[in-house]
Amino acid sequence: MRDVSNDSELQTYYRQMVPHALRPLWLDYKELLQPEPRSKAIPYVWHWRDMYPQIMKAAELVSTDEAERRVLMLMNPGLEGRDAITNTLYAGVQLVLPGEVAAAHRHTPSALRFIIDGDGGGHTTVDGERIPMESGDLVLTPNWTWHDHGNHSGRPIIWLDGLDLPLANMLEATFFELFGDDMQPVTKPSDASVESWGAAAGLRPVGRQHTAAYSPLMHYQWRQTKPALERLAAAGGGTPEDGAMLEYTNPQTGGHVMPTMACYAQVLAPGQRTAAHRHTCSAVYQVVEGRGQSIVNGEQLDWESKDVFCVPGWTYHEHANTSSEPAYLFSFTDLPVLESMDLLREQPHPKGRQ
Amino acid sequence: MRDVSNDSELQTYYRQMVPHALRPLWLDYKELLQPEPRSKAIPYVWHWRDMYPQIMKAAELVSTDEAERRVLMLMNPGLEGRDAITNTLYAGVQLVLPGEVAAAHRHTPSALRFIIDGDGGGHTTVDGERIPMESGDLVLTPNWTWHDHGNHSGRPIIWLDGLDLPLANMLEATFFELFGDDMQPVTKPSDASVESWGAAAGLRPVGRQHTAAYSPLMHYQWRQTKPALERLAAAGGGTPEDGAMLEYTNPQTGGHVMPTMACYAQVLAPGQRTAAHRHTCSAVYQVVEGRGQSIVNGEQLDWESKDVFCVPGWTYHEHANTSSEPAYLFSFTDLPVLESMDLLREQPHPKGRQ
Amino acid sequence: MRDVSNDSELQTYYRQMVPHALRPLWLDYKELLQPEPRSKAIPYVWHWRDMYPQIMKAAELVSTDEAERRVLMLMNPGLEGRDAITNTLYAGVQLVLPGEVAAAHRHTPSALRFIIDGDGGGHTTVDGERIPMESGDLVLTPNWTWHDHGNHSGRPIIWLDGLDLPLANMLEATFFELFGDDMQPVTKPSDASVESWGAAAGLRPVGRQHTAAYSPLMHYQWRQTKPALERLAAAGGGTPEDGAMLEYTNPQTGGHVMPTMACYAQVLAPGQRTAAHRHTCSAVYQVVEGRGQSIVNGEQLDWESKDVFCVPGWTYHEHANTSSEPAYLFSFTDLPVLESMDLLREQPHPKGRQ
Amino acid sequence: MRDVSNDSELQTYYRQMVPHALRPLWLDYKELLQPEPRSKAIPYVWHWRDMYPQIMKAAELVSTDEAERRVLMLMNPGLEGRDAITNTLYAGVQLVLPGEVAAAHRHTPSALRFIIDGDGGGHTTVDGERIPMESGDLVLTPNWTWHDHGNHSGRPIIWLDGLDLPLANMLEATFFELFGDDMQPVTKPSDASVESWGAAAGLRPVGRQHTAAYSPLMHYQWRQTKPALERLAAAGGGTPEDGAMLEYTNPQTGGHVMPTMACYAQVLAPGQRTAAHRHTCSAVYQVVEGRGQSIVNGEQLDWESKDVFCVPGWTYHEHANTSSEPAYLFSFTDLPVLESMDLLREQPHPKGRQ
Repeated sequence: MRDVSNDSELQTYYRQMVPHALRPLWLDYKELLQPEPRSKAIPYVWHWRDMYPQIMKAAELVSTDEAERRVLMLMNPGLEGRDAITNTLYAGVQLVLPGEVAAAHRHTPSALRFIIDGDGGGHTTVDGERIPMESGDLVLTPNWTWHDHGNHSGRPIIWLDGLDLPLANMLEATFFELFGDDMQPVTKPSDASVESWGAAAGLRPVGRQHTAAYSPLMHYQWRQTKPALERLAAAGGGTPEDGAMLEYTNPQTGGHVMPTMACYAQVLAPGQRTAAHRHTCSAVYQVVEGRGQSIVNGEQLDWESKDVFCVPGWTYHEHANTSSEPAYLFSFTDLPVLESMDLLREQPHPKGRQ
Repeated sequence: MRDVSNDSELQTYYRQMVPHALRPLWLDYKELLQPEPRSKAIPYVWHWRDMYPQIMKAAELVSTDEAERRVLMLMNPGLEGRDAITNTLYAGVQLVLPGEVAAAHRHTPSALRFIIDGDGGGHTTVDGERIPMESGDLVLTPNWTWHDHGNHSGRPIIWLDGLDLPLANMLEATFFELFGDDMQPVTKPSDASVESWGAAAGLRPVGRQHTAAYSPLMHYQWRQTKPALERLAAAGGGTPEDGAMLEYTNPQTGGHVMPTMACYAQVLAPGQRTAAHRHTCSAVYQVVEGRGQSIVNGEQLDWESKDVFCVPGWTYHEHANTSSEPAYLFSFTDLPVLESMDLLREQPHPKGRQ
Repeated sequence: MRDVSNDSELQTYYRQMVPHALRPLWLDYKELLQPEPRSKAIPYVWHWRDMYPQIMKAAELVSTDEAERRVLMLMNPGLEGRDAITNTLYAGVQLVLPGEVAAAHRHTPSALRFIIDGDGGGHTTVDGERIPMESGDLVLTPNWTWHDHGNHSGRPIIWLDGLDLPLANMLEATFFELFGDDMQPVTKPSDASVESWGAAAGLRPVGRQHTAAYSPLMHYQWRQTKPALERLAAAGGGTPEDGAMLEYTNPQTGGHVMPTMACYAQVLAPGQRTAAHRHTCSAVYQVVEGRGQSIVNGEQLDWESKDVFCVPGWTYHEHANTSSEPAYLFSFTDLPVLESMDLLREQPHPKGRQ
Repeated sequence: MRDVSNDSELQTYYRQMVPHALRPLWLDYKELLQPEPRSKAIPYVWHWRDMYPQIMKAAELVSTDEAERRVLMLMNPGLEGRDAITNTLYAGVQLVLPGEVAAAHRHTPSALRFIIDGDGGGHTTVDGERIPMESGDLVLTPNWTWHDHGNHSGRPIIWLDGLDLPLANMLEATFFELFGDDMQPVTKPSDASVESWGAAAGLRPVGRQHTAAYSPLMHYQWRQTKPALERLAAAGGGTPEDGAMLEYTNPQTGGHVMPTMACYAQVLAPGQRTAAHRHTCSAVYQVVEGRGQSIVNGEQLDWESKDVFCVPGWTYHEHANTSSEPAYLFSFTDLPVLESMDLLREQPHPKGRQ
């Protein structure tokens, strides 16, 4: 059979239709419809020992006034200069010095903040609610919520930013607005959403109207999450692929915290090694405590406390705690996106492990 | 115009159709379609000072072997011998002595248990999960779950039973089955659902499949609920009609704990008096702590710790804490039924208070 | 073991607690919690040959002015004078003479009208939309919609009324209001909901806001339903228990037409006999065309065109077309109620047929 | 203030962090978070007078055996060689000659076919159901359904392919599989889904289980859609921005036909001009009948029967029928994607028209 891609006679036909904005499908067919996904993103680990000096150097060189946000983005080396850690997700390390402010704005890309180093003296204000930020806490600043950051403590605060910015930009749905003043007015009690929605499992405040698509709870405290993980693990909870794992949820619906990103915390016991699997959603992990390694598509990523690593979509991955202490991981993924589109697939590794 | 109900000529016509199982609507029209609901149930309070000696006397006279369940039902005086506290709801006071067992069975009417007096030595086992019962705890035994009760402590345990039994019987949908043995086998860790689902707000165990229509969390502990109420109240939460109030929820969906009954806890500050309203759902209140009064359709019900009172549907009601300590109320209603049927209405009292 | 119900010593104890509105559960236990439902309603058929002369006689004796609605209710003989055809459902035969009006009102019980005999000259107006009524049509007058009936043709119109009135009254949620004038103003084009929502399967008008819990389509025409049944049957559709059957749906949600009642049309081929099953919902059947018999809890009900019969909940039933022409049945049930409450059960007959 | 992007001292700092896969956010900040979307896709019209000779030429030059699918893709000139008509959508014109087969395969990108020229002799088989294709019909081949195309008529069949392929590829969620044989076996009656689900509005077959996320109805016939549009228009239905418009729906849920694409048909009366608006979803229009023009971001697109044009996201657009006959448009959009992600925005033009 002729190769219709390279046939010289046909080339003329192909070329003359270009001005009509037409192109034969059969030239691109195999590239467009591949048997299964092969992410351009690669498995990669960002070590704290590398990130920390860089972000501290940034603090010397650039003010928040100059940068608006003092953030170093984690650039997936496979994504050729796209500001993305996986195809749909963005991650960055942000630092706010004592006395600084990161000015109030809002945008349709949704964001989460996972505190790497903070003692509660730094804060984020979200739609008028001021939220203190402590190490291990998760803070949401969802789609189109006003938010600004400040630091009234005596030492720098550093956190991981997670956004669906690559997704929102691919969908051509990014809107952005500056508040005008550096800081929005605080109109609610501190941690108001925690006082209303966060006090205990299975309890909902009567009379609070919340119609947004994201969680009414803006702050998930590590001092709640860590013991919850420990209790789950002690009760034998968990799956072979993830160990004892909790998903952060929207308490009003029981669903994901935001329509585009899901957040998780998990604990691996000393020596524990999980079963390998892959799924079409991609993931970003922040090591909260502990030391271990993950094997992603055959590649070994060694990690320790405060490191960040990524697992691109449809890559087999498994995790191991190689230390004698429990290892705690926070992670976020684009699972809700794949799920809504009915494009979520999951597959265990045929041999259990790589 | 003729009165077609009493017209003597027409009576012959009416009578001759009886054998055909027919009857003129116009004879019953006004009774069938009244302008608004007038519950046959009346507002009523059962005082602990009355219930307690009666249930203790029952302990002397009747064993759980003889009674299967040693329960005194709270009979609404307006309901003419129906075993019901409101049109759709049932309430009873149950006592289990040290060493006794209330044998394992299951039924389609859903049940809840609110512990009036217990130190954790008594327990309910629900589908293989053993749940210790302490004062103020809420325990669910939903539709068709196996359940039995026991008491391994040194003193009697007493709780309030709440069921949708009148509703299930009206709907002709009651099924009942004995387990066979007195006690079902315990197949899960103690309080397993609390360890998985109950550790903290906004956290869901990954990998737990739960497809039932009721909550996966079977046990809501007062030691969680009370501080949650206090925090909500301190943060200014609440509504004019209910004060600071939390609904117990199904953490998987954020919805009601069961498809037929909703459960609530609320706190009234010393001296607080709520605004009056009415709704088509009916409610049963258990006083957890404190002293006060409720005005229901103009009738004053005085209550104190451990008393039970009911608010029939579509009756104006308001509550007041008449003491100098906070008053805590637990309540359950048939709101989910009215809501599903699109028959839920709520109306504030035109004057705010009665 | 003592019989604690009859023990004479205990009787004293039982009697003295009556003034406290208490009663031992164990006296009623077996009656309250029976192994499975036994409906008080009985299987029954109302023959057109009986109903027709009675309703025509009513037309002579009573005007719509006098009766407000000229309806003969179908009284289930097992229900002891309750105005009900099954525990939750009501059915009646209504007649409007040429020139008469059945005055505008609304009520929270939901209603459906299935036209037994009409040529389109009679009509129902629902919330400003005038709907012509032809034999075999289904017209909805849901919860709290204004509705009045008229007849501008030259001959009487007769239809079957189906309501959830017993349910709404049991739930103490019946509200009723007169419009004031006999007829509400017509504010929309005739059959407006059909023009918008009813033109073809799988097409929804853009820009029509409809937030009610019931269907936006108020009129389902037999001239659409009958050919649809024929096509379904020809394509081999159907179930062993029901033959080729279509559920009338809310086109906005794909769900039941109203939150309390589901409506169906089915066809049985000449000689076809269905498999027996039972379910906790109860049903009322209207024979549209044809002749056959149903066996309900062992009792044979013979039916022909325009007859009505009922199948109480949890009774085994099977249908047979005993003629040489197709038989068409319309039916309505309380399935949505049982389903919402998670009390719906279905069971095939162990032998397939009774 | 310094320009931190161009400061020479800082460049050294920026460069040395590249090997650590880090990059300052502030260098890309303004590009990443723009005030509102500016699609790279441009408004464009593909005229039938151009497409038709090109696709007929393809029929001479390339067989379906060689091409697997004989499709000319509509390449948005703004998208720099991406096989896409808007950022998330793909469109192509496909031709099958008499006697040809386009081999069976399946893929996770969802597809729709809108027949430009066919008399029912061509067909698509979807999961064992053979669907005849007539001009104006819509046929779905959703996510992971087996499908092949054939033509047993005497003349070519041509249709528009619409896919979410750019989206699925951006999400790295494309899977593809060949069936093996050219044609899958036909296992269901012809147009089985139409016989079951498509006969009339508001009727659902009882007993058909359908659990997929897409519509159970695979074929929407123009001979149903066109009169439905006419009835809607005659009844005064429609919106200022779209005229009388129907959305094709999943009859089981009332929702979109597929989780990633929504389909619409609309009619514009002679002389009708719609109001301008914009929305974050992008759209592709196929002119079924008629002649008119659309103004998209100030640019005039003239169109007539069988032309295709696109409206990129967040571009103001308005349509006009400039002829004396009704104009019928079919369109598909990625609205369900934006909606699920809570990124759907719509805005009327401040002046009503451009």
